[in-house]
Amino acid sequence: MDHYQDWGHVLQLTIELIATAAFALSGVMEAARKRLDAVGVCVVGFLCAFGGGTLRDLLLDQRPFFWVKHVEVLWGVFALCLLTMLFLRPRHFSVTERAIQWPDALGLGLFTAVGVSQSLALGLPSIVAVLMGVITAVFGGVLRDMVCNEIPTAFNDHRPYAVCAFAGAWAYIALWSIDSPAWICMLVSLSFTVFLRTLALWFNWQLPPWRQN
Amino acid sequence: MDHYQDWGHVLQLTIELIATAAFALSGVMEAARKRLDAVGVCVVGFLCAFGGGTLRDLLLDQRPFFWVKHVEVLWGVFALCLLTMLFLRPRHFSVTERAIQWPDALGLGLFTAVGVSQSLALGLPSIVAVLMGVITAVFGGVLRDMVCNEIPTAFNDHRPYAVCAFAGAWAYIALWSIDSPAWICMLVSLSFTVFLRTLALWFNWQLPPWRQN
Amino acid sequence: MDHYQDWGHVLQLTIELIATAAFALSGVMEAARKRLDAVGVCVVGFLCAFGGGTLRDLLLDQRPFFWVKHVEVLWGVFALCLLTMLFLRPRHFSVTERAIQWPDALGLGLFTAVGVSQSLALGLPSIVAVLMGVITAVFGGVLRDMVCNEIPTAFNDHRPYAVCAFAGAWAYIALWSIDSPAWICMLVSLSFTVFLRTLALWFNWQLPPWRQN
Repeated sequence: MDHYQDWGHVLQLTIELIATAAFALSGVMEAARKRLDAVGVCVVGFLCAFGGGTLRDLLLDQRPFFWVKHVEVLWGVFALCLLTMLFLRPRHFSVTERAIQWPDALGLGLFTAVGVSQSLALGLPSIVAVLMGVITAVFGGVLRDMVCNEIPTAFNDHRPYAVCAFAGAWAYIALWSIDSPAWICMLVSLSFTVFLRTLALWFNWQLPPWRQN
Repeated sequence: MDHYQDWGHVLQLTIELIATAAFALSGVMEAARKRLDAVGVCVVGFLCAFGGGTLRDLLLDQRPFFWVKHVEVLWGVFALCLLTMLFLRPRHFSVTERAIQWPDALGLGLFTAVGVSQSLALGLPSIVAVLMGVITAVFGGVLRDMVCNEIPTAFNDHRPYAVCAFAGAWAYIALWSIDSPAWICMLVSLSFTVFLRTLALWFNWQLPPWRQN
Repeated sequence: MDHYQDWGHVLQLTIELIATAAFALSGVMEAARKRLDAVGVCVVGFLCAFGGGTLRDLLLDQRPFFWVKHVEVLWGVFALCLLTMLFLRPRHFSVTERAIQWPDALGLGLFTAVGVSQSLALGLPSIVAVLMGVITAVFGGVLRDMVCNEIPTAFNDHRPYAVCAFAGAWAYIALWSIDSPAWICMLVSLSFTVFLRTLALWFNWQLPPWRQN
């Protein structure tokens, strides 16, 4: 049993690092498109990587933040931003964007499940836990777009992103309410979110627009 | 006496629900104008309805938030957003906007008074309590406009909105400093804010612009 | 020794007030450029003056805020905003902007050092302390630009500002790690930041842009 827990822990950490890198990269490229300077690139990279979880912890009044407990990830994201500035050119952006879709989807699933699980551990009601899960996964990107002076793409590109996190979070709640072990809730919720996100990307699903008449 | 307190409590709750709905509606319509998708509409609705109070509680380090204690309002605002998306069309916007001016003014008055009263209960200085009152009432709309990539209307439409809240908050402080009972402070502050806001709308008052020479 | 400490304390307070006024002025003029009304001018002035330190205290979970402990500065910034609206005209803006460059640089140095020192006192790791120092000094301006619907100048004007604060913060850490007394860390860090900022302004240093090919 311990063996499985260790294995699960390493798996979670691996996904977390890969997803954080993917989130940071999405910020760095947005910053580059807006022609920000080195400072802006780093700040937007940090916001994308840690913004969602930090906002969740602020709202839940949890300290220390993830990046205070594990300062290595701060150094890692910092190094990533500098390396990207040195080696990534605008002509590599579209291929990079396609390449990070999958780690990004993994991150969407994982961060949602982590947010839900933390909120439930604090005894919060289900709907609040779901919102916290979605905030963890989605608000890094929202803050990125607010700083870059854009309407957040999560709110107006009509492609299901937050909605997948929302569904995955409810999957967590459903399993948790029938007393499933934590790792099952986590794994199923993560897989469900990633599955929905994959379908959405594959079939190019669209959220309904506001009907005009 | 108890009878009056109960009655006052029911009245406050009623105003609070009506005002929250009006605030949420203003967010939903702004989101629709910006052609956000269903996710954006809900997020902006939530921000308008709960943003001001949540920011106040963050600054005052108060937990749980209103919407964590009363999750029913979360469901209510969620339902309101979905119903609006289904049934409200752009041609209904201007009539809706006129219709919500009055519940919005009520909300402005109530949320200001609630913010001031909470801050005084924590022993904060008067000017800080006034600022917290104004933040409670006004910053939902400010966050809405920041997400929608606009300069906040509260800051540049030259019509008195935050100023009414500011005056109403000082009315609360004045009554409280002569030891008036809480319900009198609350009622007079609310009425004063609503009265000023009504005058401002009626006579089309304008805040002074920056003189250009 | 006590004599020197008092003297240092008065010096710090003096710089703090001058720098707060300079920060507030930069907000007021940005608000005027965007033709905000009196409410907007005051809010943006407050955000510039207190935004960075408030965000730091939110993240570090420190209360009370500076402006709650010393409400006089709230009244001071309020008075400054009103006086500026009465007496400052657009034709005075460019000369005012040049005049506040030096108090602004002093503020950059002081607020960075204060942020680092507070974080170290809480036992946070060096890199987190450095980030908190930079946030204290720079995020007032970032919030100003976000409210005014601009990409923050700190992130895209390619002139070293946050970078000077970053270097000054590391200078603090270096001296602190060899057990220098607090006032030495503070003074050297402040001077180093101001020195770098002065060089940057003097020689018109540019941060490297993103290479396009």
